[in-house]
Order: sequence, then C-alpha cells, then structure tokens
Amino acid sequence: MDNPSLITVPVPLGDRAYDILVGRGLIASAGARIAALGARAAAIVTDEHVGPLYAHALAASLEAQGLRVSVTALAPGEATKSYAGLERVCDAVLAAKIERGDLVVALGGGVIGDLAGFAAAVVRRGVRFVQVPTTLLSQVDSSVGGKTGINSRHGKNLVGAFHQPSLVIADTALLDTLPIREMRAGYAEVAKYGLIDDERFFAWCEGNWSGIFAGSLARDKAVAQSCRAKAAVVVRDEHETGDRALLNLGHTFGHALEKITAYDSARLVHGEGVAIGLALAFRFSASLGLCPLADAERVEAHLKATGLPTRLSQVPGGCGTVDELLAAMAQDKKVKGGALTFILARGIGQSFIAPGIEAETVRRFLASEIDA
Amino acid sequence: MDNPSLITVPVPLGDRAYDILVGRGLIASAGARIAALGARAAAIVTDEHVGPLYAHALAASLEAQGLRVSVTALAPGEATKSYAGLERVCDAVLAAKIERGDLVVALGGGVIGDLAGFAAAVVRRGVRFVQVPTTLLSQVDSSVGGKTGINSRHGKNLVGAFHQPSLVIADTALLDTLPIREMRAGYAEVAKYGLIDDERFFAWCEGNWSGIFAGSLARDKAVAQSCRAKAAVVVRDEHETGDRALLNLGHTFGHALEKITAYDSARLVHGEGVAIGLALAFRFSASLGLCPLADAERVEAHLKATGLPTRLSQVPGGCGTVDELLAAMAQDKKVKGGALTFILARGIGQSFIAPGIEAETVRRFLASEIDA
Repeated sequence: MDNPSLITVPVPLGDRAYDILVGRGLIASAGARIAALGARAAAIVTDEHVGPLYAHALAASLEAQGLRVSVTALAPGEATKSYAGLERVCDAVLAAKIERGDLVVALGGGVIGDLAGFAAAVVRRGVRFVQVPTTLLSQVDSSVGGKTGINSRHGKNLVGAFHQPSLVIADTALLDTLPIREMRAGYAEVAKYGLIDDERFFAWCEGNWSGIFAGSLARDKAVAQSCRAKAAVVVRDEHETGDRALLNLGHTFGHALEKITAYDSARLVHGEGVAIGLALAFRFSASLGLCPLADAERVEAHLKATGLPTRLSQVPGGCGTVDELLAAMAQDKKVKGGALTFILARGIGQSFIAPGIEAETVRRFLASEIDA
Repeated sequence: MDNPSLITVPVPLGDRAYDILVGRGLIASAGARIAALGARAAAIVTDEHVGPLYAHALAASLEAQGLRVSVTALAPGEATKSYAGLERVCDAVLAAKIERGDLVVALGGGVIGDLAGFAAAVVRRGVRFVQVPTTLLSQVDSSVGGKTGINSRHGKNLVGAFHQPSLVIADTALLDTLPIREMRAGYAEVAKYGLIDDERFFAWCEGNWSGIFAGSLARDKAVAQSCRAKAAVVVRDEHETGDRALLNLGHTFGHALEKITAYDSARLVHGEGVAIGLALAFRFSASLGLCPLADAERVEAHLKATGLPTRLSQVPGGCGTVDELLAAMAQDKKVKGGALTFILARGIGQSFIAPGIEAETVRRFLASEIDA
C-alpha cells in the first residue's frame, strides 16, 4: 500500500475518528485499505456512469481480500437522491446481508455519497460506510463531515442523518476524465475554503489553479487542504449548531439560484451556483461597508479566470426577479425564526455568520445586482 | 400541573437525558408539559383510531400554550411502518415547517411511536420528539429507549435510527378502553422485566396483575417499574452493542412466530408471540439444565393466569414445522455471523445472553415442543 504521493488527513472525532486518504491511483489499493477495517462483507453503491468504469475493479480487489461483495448501480443524477432511491439502496444492502460490522461503500459523486451514506446510517440503525468519491466536488466537500441525506419535495437535503464514514479514499487520478464543467464546479468549493478563513490558501489557489485542473501534485495538495479545512470546522461543530454554518459561504445565494433554475443541471450545477454565490456574498459584504471592494473584485477575478460564472446575468434562462430570489432564500433550511442568516466577510479569509439580516437589505442589494 | 399519582422516571443519558412521566389523566396537562420544552411548533402524528379520541384535545392544549400545531393521522396497523409511511410523515413534518428547535409528537401505539420517532430522527437530520404512548405495550416498551424505525421487505425494524425522545408522557387512564387482548399483549413485556433480572418484581406481578389490568394504582406502578427497568438497560448500552440484548428475552422465538403467522394480528400480536417466547425460553433453559424446571413452570402458570398463550400449539393456524421456525429465527437480525444468539435464564430474574447456540440444539428442543 506504499504510495509516494499519499496524503493522510485525520478527522479526529473521538470514537467516530477516521482518515481521509488523498493521492493519485489510490483506487488500486482500495480493496486492501477497506478490508483493513475488518468487515466480512461490503455492499458497493454506485451509479450507472461510474459503475462501469470502476466498480468491477473495486469489487475484485475487495473479493481478493476475502470479502463478500455486492454492487448496486443507480441512475445518475440528483433525482436518485429520493425516498425511492433510499428504499432501493436500503433493500439492496439488506439483501446483501450486511450486518453491523460490515460496510457500505459509496463509489461516485455527491449524490451517491449522500444517498449511500444515509442508507448506511439507517440500515439496522447504522452500519459503517466508506466513501470513494469520484468527483472533485465530492472529494473536497460532500464526502467529508458526515452529512448524508435525500431530497424532499420541500427542498434539497431536508431528510437525512449525521453519519461519519469510517474511511474516505480520494483518488485524484479519477478526476482526469472529469468534464471541465464538473471540475470547475468542484473548484468553487476549493476556493471557498480559502475565502472562509485562509487568505494564504486562496492566494496559493490563484497561483496554482491551472495545475489543480491539469492534475499536477497541486491537485492532491488542494484536495487535501480542502479536506483539512472542512474537517477542522466539522470537528469544532459536528452537528451544525454553530460555526459549521461558515461552510455555507456562498450557499444561501447559490441554493436560491439552484431552486430558481429548478435544479436543472443543464442550466446550473451546484458549484456554479456557489461561485455566483461567493461573488455575491463578497459584493454584498462590500455594499454593507464590511469588506473592501478590492477584495470582492479579487474574488470575482479569480473565479472568472477559472471559467466560473460570478454574475446573476450569467444564469442561463435568467435568475428570476428579486422577489423570486428572496422567496427561494426564505425557504432555505438555514432560515431560523423567519430571519435570514448569511455568511458575510470582512475580507478574504475573514468570513463570519451574520444572523438576522433584514429582507429589505437583501432586496436592495439584489436589485442592484440584477440591474448591473 | 400537580398530579398526586404522577411518577417521574428519569432516563439519565447525558445530553440526551429525558423524563418519563407516568400517571392517570396526564394527557390533560400534556400541552403545558410539552410547551415547557421550549418549541414554537409541534407536528402531532397519530393514527385514525387514536386521533379522533385524543388528537383534538392535545392540539388544543398545545395551541393554548401558543404553539403552532398540525395533525397527521395515518392508517392504523403495522403496514404503516413502511418507506411510504416515512415519506408521508417526513413530508407532513416539513410542510408544518418544523425547525430544529421544534417538536414532533407521537400520539399512538408502537407503530406511530416508531414511525414518528424515525421521521423526527431524519427530518433536517434530527428534530426533537415527544412520545405520548396510548397502549400498554408502547408505554412499557417501545416509547422508552430511543429505538425508532420502519419495516423492510427483509424484516421488521430493519431500517431506523437511535433517536431519544425529549419527553415521554404515559397516561395510564388511556388504557381503560384498551381491548383485553392488547392489554394482555402489553402485559407480556411487563412480566418480562421481572423475568430478566428482578424476581421480586415478577412475584409482585403475580400478586397484582389483576389490578394492573383493572386500572388500580398497581397499573401506574407496573408501568413506571417497567420503564425504570428498561431505562436502566438502555443507559448501560444505548446502542445495543452489549447487554441491551437482554431485553430480547422471549423475542427470538416470538419474532419467529410473528414471521410464521405473516404478521397477521388476527392470528398473533407481538405480545402473544413474546408470551409464548418467554415460556419457551425458560423451558429451553430448563431442557439445557440451566434453569430449574419449577421456574419454567412458574413462568408458564403466571402467563396462563392472565390469559396469555404459552405453547406453540396455541398459535392460531399452526406454528409451522421445526424447519420453518428455525429458518425464521435465522433471518432475525439478532443472528451474528450465522450462529444463533438466545437470551436464556438460570432462573426467574437471572437471564443472560447466550451466543453461539447450535441450530441442532434448537431443533431438538423445538421438535419436543411441537410434539408436546
């Protein structure tokens, strides 16, 4: 299992502690690493895009370690993160006779990780699971921190569980074949970690983003640093009662845009919404006099350089009216007691939770953005 | 909120600690007691039998405390504890705009408590809930301990979560109108607590069971003592990695009989299966030379006196063959690594976990019981 480029990021959550392994080509040794957790059986959950590429090899490497293995492949896409998807995965895991010491292995992007993780949380009231994220977005965000769940007709991720994985294996070579649009979308979350509380990392990203996209060692470093940043927040606030909300920088605007575009990935994917949301959060902060305008401009310039959108006018098919945007934000689960909570910033790397923002203040800002 | 007959049973589970309140007529003050938990909204989940009797009064008493209240009534019966039932309750709770500080209130028997508790565990990754159990079985068993869940086509309670309630209100007057068969079925679990580790309580039950059935103060004492006994086990082993399994005394046989009778409550309800299972567990222990035969006979005599079944021959429609019974037991989730785990006893109040019981040993015992 030697791997010269292996970076281990520990997530020290007491009796739920686990490691995130980052490196090129890790999937070749995934069977041995997963088997070392001590299970006798593994249920691989994947989708019909990723499964044909990697599931056979992963299953074979687990079987070579003496594990009993099953594979379930679901339709790709957000619609799979549903009650019906949950039923399908739970029943598949039960049919595979996974017991409490055994494992569910999520092989795919965020949809598969969230769904399989939720199924693992509830089958037999909790079995262990391993994340093998196959997109940049899932490697730096959804596979870390234990949030799992499905969508409801009332909104995304409204039904789920906190359930930490036992191991995360992020093979950065899997990203070599990722479509550029998905690479960019994941990159918005990478940049976000710098913007939250690490100006140095953001500056490093400005200088190294092309290496991250191309697959140099910078990619491994960026994934590992993103995981480290997220893990640090999760360790401080596992169940999001406090500053875990900082991870939502850019997301209040972003989620509203996803809602307005009816979660149609042809129009807008999550990371694109986050990119526009990050630019908006900094411009909003600047408009409130909290943050230098130069910082907001620097954020926008960098996101633009990587090809990400930063303006409401860039939402294909339009971003809706100010009222529609406000209504979409008010329905977001981060609303507490009717008041809007935003993550704002005093500068790059200086974000903070700002509860109780008046709707009228947001309305004026959005109107200026739509007219811009 | 004064109530001379109120008994408070604390469940000291650290930051998940809560009280079980037992007494006649508690439902009259339930609104005030629930409102004292500090929520702004409550989603009452009930069934179409219980709802018309108590939901209106409960809703009114919560509204009188200033809470926003919704009521969802589901079809009564085990079939409601399904993925479809979960979706229905989660969506109803979300439609009621229940946020993290708010409450789900389960008003009903074990089906409603398990289902509403599971929905509370997963809506927004966990909201608080209150149990208002309306059957003897749910007052002494399912409402205590935080096990929630639904059934899968692979078996009962195979999908769920550990989620402790914030309060349990057991109004023993609600049992006055309980059908005698349901009263007996719940009583099997009361007697079980004595059989597990409290010979004195079992002896008290032998002398007081008719008062429990009739609704004297003995009923309140029996409910409170049962809750105390279960809480003590749960506090030692919240997530059933160890001796919480003792609560399954009588249940390995009982679950097999429920399976054989296709969960048809016209044939056998859970508590009847448990009663036969308790008698079988003691006779099995005696046949293995672990327990005096006199103790097994005493167990059977008491259960019989209350009108509960104690023999395989009493299963309406038959109990199946030895092979069918064994197969049903092997599918039970308490099977670990293919070996059968039983809860056996060295005498009344002296139960213990017996893993690795050979199928052949069980087969011989069952054959002797079927021929008896």
